[in-house]
Amino acid sequence: MTLDTSNIRKLFPILGQTINGYPLAYLDSAASAQKPIQVIETLKHYYEHDNANVHRGVHTLGSRATEAYEESRAKVARFIHAERVEEIIFTRGTTSSINLVASSYARAICKEGDEIVVSAMEHHSNLLPWQQAAKATGAVLKYIPLQADGTFSIEAAEKTITDRTKVVSVSHISNVLGVANPVKQIAAIAHKHGAVVMVDGAQSIPHIKVDVQELDCDFYAFSGHKMCGPTGIGVMYGKKAYLEQMEPIQFGGEMIDYVGLHDASWKELPWKFEGGTPIIAGAIGLSAAIDFLEQIGLDVIAAHDKQLTSYAVERMKQIEHLTMYGPEEGRFGLVTFNLGTIHPHDLATVLDMYGVAIRAGHHCCQPLMRHFGASATARASFYLYNTEEDVEQLLFALNKTKEYFREVE
Amino acid sequence: MTLDTSNIRKLFPILGQTINGYPLAYLDSAASAQKPIQVIETLKHYYEHDNANVHRGVHTLGSRATEAYEESRAKVARFIHAERVEEIIFTRGTTSSINLVASSYARAICKEGDEIVVSAMEHHSNLLPWQQAAKATGAVLKYIPLQADGTFSIEAAEKTITDRTKVVSVSHISNVLGVANPVKQIAAIAHKHGAVVMVDGAQSIPHIKVDVQELDCDFYAFSGHKMCGPTGIGVMYGKKAYLEQMEPIQFGGEMIDYVGLHDASWKELPWKFEGGTPIIAGAIGLSAAIDFLEQIGLDVIAAHDKQLTSYAVERMKQIEHLTMYGPEEGRFGLVTFNLGTIHPHDLATVLDMYGVAIRAGHHCCQPLMRHFGASATARASFYLYNTEEDVEQLLFALNKTKEYFREVE
Repeated sequence: MTLDTSNIRKLFPILGQTINGYPLAYLDSAASAQKPIQVIETLKHYYEHDNANVHRGVHTLGSRATEAYEESRAKVARFIHAERVEEIIFTRGTTSSINLVASSYARAICKEGDEIVVSAMEHHSNLLPWQQAAKATGAVLKYIPLQADGTFSIEAAEKTITDRTKVVSVSHISNVLGVANPVKQIAAIAHKHGAVVMVDGAQSIPHIKVDVQELDCDFYAFSGHKMCGPTGIGVMYGKKAYLEQMEPIQFGGEMIDYVGLHDASWKELPWKFEGGTPIIAGAIGLSAAIDFLEQIGLDVIAAHDKQLTSYAVERMKQIEHLTMYGPEEGRFGLVTFNLGTIHPHDLATVLDMYGVAIRAGHHCCQPLMRHFGASATARASFYLYNTEEDVEQLLFALNKTKEYFREVE
Repeated sequence: MTLDTSNIRKLFPILGQTINGYPLAYLDSAASAQKPIQVIETLKHYYEHDNANVHRGVHTLGSRATEAYEESRAKVARFIHAERVEEIIFTRGTTSSINLVASSYARAICKEGDEIVVSAMEHHSNLLPWQQAAKATGAVLKYIPLQADGTFSIEAAEKTITDRTKVVSVSHISNVLGVANPVKQIAAIAHKHGAVVMVDGAQSIPHIKVDVQELDCDFYAFSGHKMCGPTGIGVMYGKKAYLEQMEPIQFGGEMIDYVGLHDASWKELPWKFEGGTPIIAGAIGLSAAIDFLEQIGLDVIAAHDKQLTSYAVERMKQIEHLTMYGPEEGRFGLVTFNLGTIHPHDLATVLDMYGVAIRAGHHCCQPLMRHFGASATARASFYLYNTEEDVEQLLFALNKTKEYFREVE
């Protein structure tokens, strides 16, 4: 089964516009995906019919909002195949989810000489929280060494993870390389040494079917806005046993059981981690995004994104002086590149003149950029609404850019 | 000038519905306010035309989204009369804002024997973060003693705040009492002793004009969803001098300057506190809410809310066995009460049968509830779209409730 992109595109109002006289070719979904009308209308419907605070009111709107909010949690649990609904914690996004585990779990468990293991391909969001946790506890932050193409091998992971390792945190799919890491094997290695594994799923959850029980990861983080959901909502999945031993890091209303003048006790899972009014509409919008993706089918989306990326890679190979970074095979949805000596910001600016939206910069991956000897790169990313026409428009614009910067030739 | 509530109500689609055959009398705005079409349409427009990640893309959508997001920050700064735009930090809400100050500022500045001063009327969100900061640092958490009606006097504050006090945090308007605290005088007292003052503005910002420079508070926290904005967005205002000395507590993308393998440096204000993809649509929706409130006028809203609350108090006095909590005068928008021995949850359930939405419980104020000797209370809260008809419907439903629970008589 293939994706009916022309019908899918009709569901994304934003894609119908022209930019500088050209149809919009939105190739920046790895930064943030566009939203189908189902998600936009769900938000509108919520605010027009059901809006109220949750877990607080016994009135009709309060019950409706609470039900929708908690149904969204149950849907997320099913979506990633969590064993229990209470293993799903709503957060602001991937960054908050990883910070929660690093601040609560890692800082409590790590002591001087322990190890936290990451890789140098990680997004800053999966790097800085661990740097800080290491600094705060005296643990050592260790890096799985990268190969020339930016990936790491299972053997390298095996050598890096030891009995002193307490936490391993890696991305499921890198936001620069676009290829999947062998997180299931990494989880097995980590568990052999008694360490827990956190997976940064920001770039995987939009593109592939994720099964946290099958991966056997202990924590999994992702954002709604990269999977057609609203901005400002994310998920932290954690195995119940770990969540139960963790202390909350945000304190406020509706996460407490009893509050005395000098001490307090917390509610059970998942609420102890959701102090304050939750991101209610965000969670309900995320639920609509999951419905949308599941209706199409994650397998169909994965096949489309992979195939379109391969098409883009093949086409881009034909452009002289274009350097692509990372392995050639197995990319889900993105290509990172440079064109001659043109600064990627200039490149992105010229592409925008032709309606093509890509991202340029260090992609919150300064260590990986240094690995490639590049201070910045351009990145085109693809999602279920992108077509070969978008790729052709990118090619057309890249060639125009070369004309624009004659010095490239 | 008085509020034209009948025209204002037309702007709130949710208010047009019936609940259990009665028109909805939504008297739970202190928990979460309803949204006017201007805010709902702003969200819709953003997702249909401009959605992209901010501060990252140089393409047209990225520029539009960034501009709208940063314009919202500038609007918030004007709205509360902050001296500088970079003193506005976007957060998930009031709870996150207070946690940020307690975790970053207070934990860095307080040591054993120092004092953190709050009052027993505080919402858990303005209590638990300070309990935790006190526990973590060895500081003493002190309470300004309450008077019988639940308020505290300036004299009591003066006696509680000493040269050992490092932080004072009080609500601007209590979510149970509905009356304003003298935060300007408290700031003056605190500053005399070299302490900083944080103000929990969750219940004030929807109802009164706030001028942070005139109050001379050092930190001010509020939520968008209580002031007609979207859920999941809030603000932490802080004086630049304090924000500059504070360390971020969330680490991720777009808050960094340089990232090495074992250390990193942060961007300038305000971005160092906004790691990860921000709550973009939330901030843009909040901007629309501010436009909406300013167009009507905060003074007009304040007068309406105060007058309608007085009307409700007068009417409710006529109900036998109805106990109101807190001072009789000076309420902005809410009445907390109990009806005989009816449990407030039962009361709220019966009121809902007549279309009246109120909140019942401890209102995240267990210490204040204990002060009143009540384990829970009911609370009716009023906002710019509420009318005397809503109050009459509440009265009608309260009388019906009395009939329902014959034992009250």
